[in-house]
Amino acid sequence: MDCGSDKVIYMDNNATTRVAPEVVDAMMPFLTDCYGNPSSMHIFGGQVGRAITEARESIAELLGAEPEEIIFTSCGTESDSTAILSGLQTFPEQRHIVTTRVEHPAVKNLCDNLDSLTGHKHRITRLQVEADGTLDLDQYRESLTEDTAIVSVMWANNETGVIFPVEEMAAMARERDILFHTDAVQAVGKIPFNLKETAIDFLSVSGHKLHAPKGVGVLYVRKGTPFIPFINGGHQEHGRRGGTENVASIVALGRACKLAGEKLEEENTRVKYLRDKLETGLLEQIPRSMLNGHKTERLPNTANISFEFVEGESILLHMDRYRICASSGSACTSGSLEPSHVLRAMGVPFTAAHGSIRFSLSVYNTEKEVDFVLEKMPAIIANLREMSPFWNKDDH
Amino acid sequence: MDCGSDKVIYMDNNATTRVAPEVVDAMMPFLTDCYGNPSSMHIFGGQVGRAITEARESIAELLGAEPEEIIFTSCGTESDSTAILSGLQTFPEQRHIVTTRVEHPAVKNLCDNLDSLTGHKHRITRLQVEADGTLDLDQYRESLTEDTAIVSVMWANNETGVIFPVEEMAAMARERDILFHTDAVQAVGKIPFNLKETAIDFLSVSGHKLHAPKGVGVLYVRKGTPFIPFINGGHQEHGRRGGTENVASIVALGRACKLAGEKLEEENTRVKYLRDKLETGLLEQIPRSMLNGHKTERLPNTANISFEFVEGESILLHMDRYRICASSGSACTSGSLEPSHVLRAMGVPFTAAHGSIRFSLSVYNTEKEVDFVLEKMPAIIANLREMSPFWNKDDH
Repeated sequence: MDCGSDKVIYMDNNATTRVAPEVVDAMMPFLTDCYGNPSSMHIFGGQVGRAITEARESIAELLGAEPEEIIFTSCGTESDSTAILSGLQTFPEQRHIVTTRVEHPAVKNLCDNLDSLTGHKHRITRLQVEADGTLDLDQYRESLTEDTAIVSVMWANNETGVIFPVEEMAAMARERDILFHTDAVQAVGKIPFNLKETAIDFLSVSGHKLHAPKGVGVLYVRKGTPFIPFINGGHQEHGRRGGTENVASIVALGRACKLAGEKLEEENTRVKYLRDKLETGLLEQIPRSMLNGHKTERLPNTANISFEFVEGESILLHMDRYRICASSGSACTSGSLEPSHVLRAMGVPFTAAHGSIRFSLSVYNTEKEVDFVLEKMPAIIANLREMSPFWNKDDH
Repeated sequence: MDCGSDKVIYMDNNATTRVAPEVVDAMMPFLTDCYGNPSSMHIFGGQVGRAITEARESIAELLGAEPEEIIFTSCGTESDSTAILSGLQTFPEQRHIVTTRVEHPAVKNLCDNLDSLTGHKHRITRLQVEADGTLDLDQYRESLTEDTAIVSVMWANNETGVIFPVEEMAAMARERDILFHTDAVQAVGKIPFNLKETAIDFLSVSGHKLHAPKGVGVLYVRKGTPFIPFINGGHQEHGRRGGTENVASIVALGRACKLAGEKLEEENTRVKYLRDKLETGLLEQIPRSMLNGHKTERLPNTANISFEFVEGESILLHMDRYRICASSGSACTSGSLEPSHVLRAMGVPFTAAHGSIRFSLSVYNTEKEVDFVLEKMPAIIANLREMSPFWNKDDH
């Protein structure tokens, strides 16, 4: 099968990323020669167990954590569910959760379905965001009550890239003995942090957002934070997550975290430069276009731009002809034609929310690619607007 | 890294299996060139979505299911938890579960922790087994009550290979409108069945038990059976399992299921012949050895043999010197030195349970390997017995 990735301009890295070639190399032995079960007594299993230990150390290092604070999971979504449900089970009398209106479906839909899942009634505070996608910390402070079991706030938004002050928020939760979880799926490898210097109790990581394969994730659980497993079974992960370890992908994630640490500076210099060039160029060249999200409190790789009076899906189709890959709304909610819940929460007008495109870059993007996109986009938007019943060129 | 799998005699296939070379080939494009997110709108994501559809069809075909009855999960353990918790949530007033005393830890430990997980009190009937590991159907019939929400009985036991009459048991549950789940992790690809001809509601599959990689599984959910998701998040799997699809491993599982279908006959002829030769040879050559489990109602690849008055772990260590890989107890519970809960449930005497070794073969085993094991084992056991304080050679 040939997908022609070498001919594609891939600017959809918040949806998923290319597996780094070094990562594929690292995992291959565990898909071929080293197929033992790490739980087995024989040496053939033992070799595999040591590879998992090394991967755990690499991940801990990137996060500023201890290896024993790392639990391997199958994805960011599982990590999120595990953290939130553990928090609720730890304080069964406290039925209040604080989260935001702009969380990823992994947290949003869990919260929406919590009552039927647990058989208990919960009160959920979904913090409102400002027009630029940032949070009001006074509103947050007031939301914390005696009844609050856990706070779950994403570190960086997948659609806009807006970064939330989770370190400050975690400290405020800690003061009131409330557990704090952050879905850091988009932040890990893009912005530097050190968990040792924070009061964060739980943090979710997804492998495929940082150049490891799909189907592996991590839940960080601070030493001393009470924890109740979500997937019960064998003794794996010290009884904290049952199921035979996804060895090849765990090894891959270890290698990817090492790489991410090495490339963190490039992410915040070269990638950021490319993103800025793309963003500025599009906003300058295309009338009635606007940035969604705070100008600076934002991931270095993400630009979410609205082109008024055109449909995001139509824009993507036309970009596809030039093999430019990006997203409208979040890939995880596509298939639906409703405008993104994130942009709606920010109060982006309907006509602009529908025409929003998320460009999300990675270290694999080049300036030539950015120039090509800047060359093609103005005509794509202009042509679509010609056909739009909402666009009256005399007005603009 | 070199694990030397080509020098190993691997007879631990109920713990995990070699990824078939054809399976590695099938998944490689999705670890390299085809890295799109199947949820993405662009063509680069669409290609990946089609590969998942094909995999789903292959798996459905092996099971005798419809593609829409297949939900991809991260492992057998997750599938088990999903089925059992869904059943309980479907009938929240019914708090009784029927299972057996010999389930895999994936089901056993979930049941053990159910009350703290759900916040509700459950009554659990754990069916007793006979000395040969089989179930008494009268005991089962009597266990089913108005209060029973779900039955969970494995299709074949991982330690002994004993096959349970789950098709008959599912029909009995259906008559009383009770949901029926089977952990078929050891049965799929080893014994033929067609889910269309059964009343089974939920069935768990694990990829790495049938020559796909670790970290992928399936939950079969019969069309019309009520279902409540375990991992909530994005719209993946038609909203039945959140989290970005583990594309490469799903494609791998599809290919592995196709292969398993093709090799089902070999499994029941050549592999069975090798297993029988190994088993008969060991029992004949080694005094005070005995088969654990029913002679015929058993998987074609599994032989669980007790060597009295020696420790399983010591036997494994000595086998390791000859690069023969097998298990004592279940790999998923190793690390503990307690005798297997399965053998204890069968009433295997302490001195024999401790010295039990599970040989589990696959289509990759050869007669030469079996002959080598038959040549080495008698001396290994004899030497260990020489050193055993419990073994008095004059007595035997």
